[in-house]
Amino acid sequence: MKTTNKKTKVLITGAGLCGSLLGLRLAQKGYHVDILEKRSDMRKATVAGGRSINLALSDRGLAGLKLVGLEEKVRKLCIPMNGRLVHDIEGTTFASNYSGREGEYINSISREELNKLLLDEADQYEDVQIDFDDKVTSVDLKNASVTYQDSETNTEKEWKADILLGTDGAGSVVRKAMMKQRDFLFSQSMNWLPHGYKELSIPPTADGKWRIEKNFLHIWPRGGFMLIALPNLDGSFTLTLFMQYEGDGPAFNSITTDQEIKDFFNTYFKDVVEHIPDVVEQYHTNPAPPLGTVRCSPWTAYGTSLIIGDSAHAIVPFYGQGMNASFEDVVVFDQMLDQNESWADAFTAFSKKRKPDADAIADLALDNFVEMRDSVANPNFQLKRQIEMRLESAFAKAEYQSKYSLVTFPQEGVSYRDAMLKGRAQDKAILWLLENKEITTTDELDVLLSKIQEKTREVLWLRG
Amino acid sequence: MKTTNKKTKVLITGAGLCGSLLGLRLAQKGYHVDILEKRSDMRKATVAGGRSINLALSDRGLAGLKLVGLEEKVRKLCIPMNGRLVHDIEGTTFASNYSGREGEYINSISREELNKLLLDEADQYEDVQIDFDDKVTSVDLKNASVTYQDSETNTEKEWKADILLGTDGAGSVVRKAMMKQRDFLFSQSMNWLPHGYKELSIPPTADGKWRIEKNFLHIWPRGGFMLIALPNLDGSFTLTLFMQYEGDGPAFNSITTDQEIKDFFNTYFKDVVEHIPDVVEQYHTNPAPPLGTVRCSPWTAYGTSLIIGDSAHAIVPFYGQGMNASFEDVVVFDQMLDQNESWADAFTAFSKKRKPDADAIADLALDNFVEMRDSVANPNFQLKRQIEMRLESAFAKAEYQSKYSLVTFPQEGVSYRDAMLKGRAQDKAILWLLENKEITTTDELDVLLSKIQEKTREVLWLRG
Repeated sequence: MKTTNKKTKVLITGAGLCGSLLGLRLAQKGYHVDILEKRSDMRKATVAGGRSINLALSDRGLAGLKLVGLEEKVRKLCIPMNGRLVHDIEGTTFASNYSGREGEYINSISREELNKLLLDEADQYEDVQIDFDDKVTSVDLKNASVTYQDSETNTEKEWKADILLGTDGAGSVVRKAMMKQRDFLFSQSMNWLPHGYKELSIPPTADGKWRIEKNFLHIWPRGGFMLIALPNLDGSFTLTLFMQYEGDGPAFNSITTDQEIKDFFNTYFKDVVEHIPDVVEQYHTNPAPPLGTVRCSPWTAYGTSLIIGDSAHAIVPFYGQGMNASFEDVVVFDQMLDQNESWADAFTAFSKKRKPDADAIADLALDNFVEMRDSVANPNFQLKRQIEMRLESAFAKAEYQSKYSLVTFPQEGVSYRDAMLKGRAQDKAILWLLENKEITTTDELDVLLSKIQEKTREVLWLRG
Repeated sequence: MKTTNKKTKVLITGAGLCGSLLGLRLAQKGYHVDILEKRSDMRKATVAGGRSINLALSDRGLAGLKLVGLEEKVRKLCIPMNGRLVHDIEGTTFASNYSGREGEYINSISREELNKLLLDEADQYEDVQIDFDDKVTSVDLKNASVTYQDSETNTEKEWKADILLGTDGAGSVVRKAMMKQRDFLFSQSMNWLPHGYKELSIPPTADGKWRIEKNFLHIWPRGGFMLIALPNLDGSFTLTLFMQYEGDGPAFNSITTDQEIKDFFNTYFKDVVEHIPDVVEQYHTNPAPPLGTVRCSPWTAYGTSLIIGDSAHAIVPFYGQGMNASFEDVVVFDQMLDQNESWADAFTAFSKKRKPDADAIADLALDNFVEMRDSVANPNFQLKRQIEMRLESAFAKAEYQSKYSLVTFPQEGVSYRDAMLKGRAQDKAILWLLENKEITTTDELDVLLSKIQEKTREVLWLRG
């Protein structure tokens, strides 16, 4: 924006990953930024859990960190994961790379370390003020003002800004204010999976090394449930067990005694449980929160308020794109600020551009749960993967990218929605061609590429 | 249910179309039924609006009326509509039948007359008690009890039953209670269209006749907006204008002065406005409420409570299936009661069976708005319609039904979801075959049928 008064006071609710990156970027653009955060400063105190410990950082998220000049610093916090390492019930493993191209991998990173870095960087700007332990209790969208519980005086105070940006996550108070107003129609959905997740930990070896292969995202797919593991810098792994709360087969509500827990892990995850002597205690201690998807529209109100990141589009974690989507939000919002003459116009343009992409990655993440849990079930699925690896190794990105690559290692400008439409069509095309014996994994690459491209175009037409 | 105590006290909230049909059916099965209705008794007082005046009744709804033995009585309230009569902007009309088969039509019926009939029938059962002017204020799902504002004493009272059935419509208080509880995960969405609807009326002629063709559903498709008309028994038509609230092109918020209203109707609907001398006054007087879709899950709580009809799945009106879906709910619920040993099991079975169908008709209804508004746009769409009419005239239902017929005139057991999946695939298949010149409208019927069936199977596979 050329005409905007840089003295505009921006209030951001929530100093999580999205809020701190957004605050940092707006400070770099010269705005005055205040951030209210209900939690304590994680740089000073141990922070209560309830959110995942480590995350998968990939290209869309890295673009956001690059925008604020932090890519190099963040890379030092990362452990590359080159692919999935699938563990079957016998303990046999097989690797499945994320890409057929060199240098395309995702990164395991600690949520806390990344957040601390972003807070430290934001704090270096004089025009950024971050207040912790201040819980927002009510929101006046039109006036970009909030009331909050001030932790120092233990009284309720008001904060009035010019612009209000809600980055307060899946349970967003700003979104709830949008839901309550009666001036415009606000569509919203909250969808829960029947599955919850429980985090566990594999400790490092005595000399601080990793007990299972370091550079993979490990998966123990078991049909209705699964376990995954991501590596941490200290040699530990964070495991996450995704399982239904109740029903036939293993369920959180029916695995509760010490013996049931032991039996469960010994039966389904015997190759990992040997590394977790205190698995029973961990299982008892750690919570099993639910997994939900939030969608809503519009994301903006009165030209003064916007929700961004999880507060506008919380998704399930199965594509490893939650943080990446939020960081990409910041990149797109930054562009919209540059391209529009007012905050109101930037808000509208941002919501309009970004909503279809948020819906797409929400759908993709839900799909991927099934794919991860069952990833050994369909034999043609493995053949498809082989063909895609060959194509990715041989051709440029513009000629072939798998659905996973389109989502995770996109060419510039390829949105989540583009990736979803093309990626789904490609998957169906390849599976159809295999099913009808029109291709085999050993066909010549040019033949494979042209048959797949042609069938993909037809599928896109037929699905559209 | 063989084992159920027939003295079970059932409380139904809402004596609208679904609640009164459900109450009547449960009384026929021998249960004791109490119905609480917030509105006044429409048989005694003029009822406030806010809901559509007439509705399209078709086979799925008629099955519900047949179940309670009312089909013949209801037929007398019906005006058959054999198809759409499309009015272009010049006032030229062309007819498009709903089916290529004899005797397949939909029916225009007065919501009020149908509801009165259902109330009268229910009232004949000693074990049915309907209390009007009693607004439910809070719900205890677990105990199947509610508090309500008693109109006679103007005090808040409690009503405790054994079973609570919420038929209280799109704004259901019972559903809101499900949303508020914290004992189980409740998924819910409320999605608004940017369009509202405004009802208008064409009066009968002086001798009580219809001013435009009686046995059609009239449509004036205009791209972003449209007008429709359904006939009433007294010779009048109820018109409904569907239009965006704001934006480029005609919108409720930008058509507000007398002159703007006159210009709007004279420009776009000149062949109908001549029949409505007081169109300006009607436009000013009548409200323009929004159009929304409600989805949620689960529909049942604690084995004691269930939501059914619009309260569980409110949809937009563009497939003419809202009431039909609710009545089909009653048919399915009736079967589930017969097939299960407890109310709790019947609730679970009903929700599980019916939820995919409710989602399907919600999606179909949203799609159909676009199809109705733009129904002249795609030339291949008209060719497809011609081919489908030929197939429906020539073959049995089991061999060919269009998407519209699958939804509206289904063979027994064809659910909304079946209809959606098959109907959408067929549409794509025919359009693809036309686009690629693999069929023409004049091909032999056997050839057409087999090519369409084959391509439909492929599309089903590729879309699945």
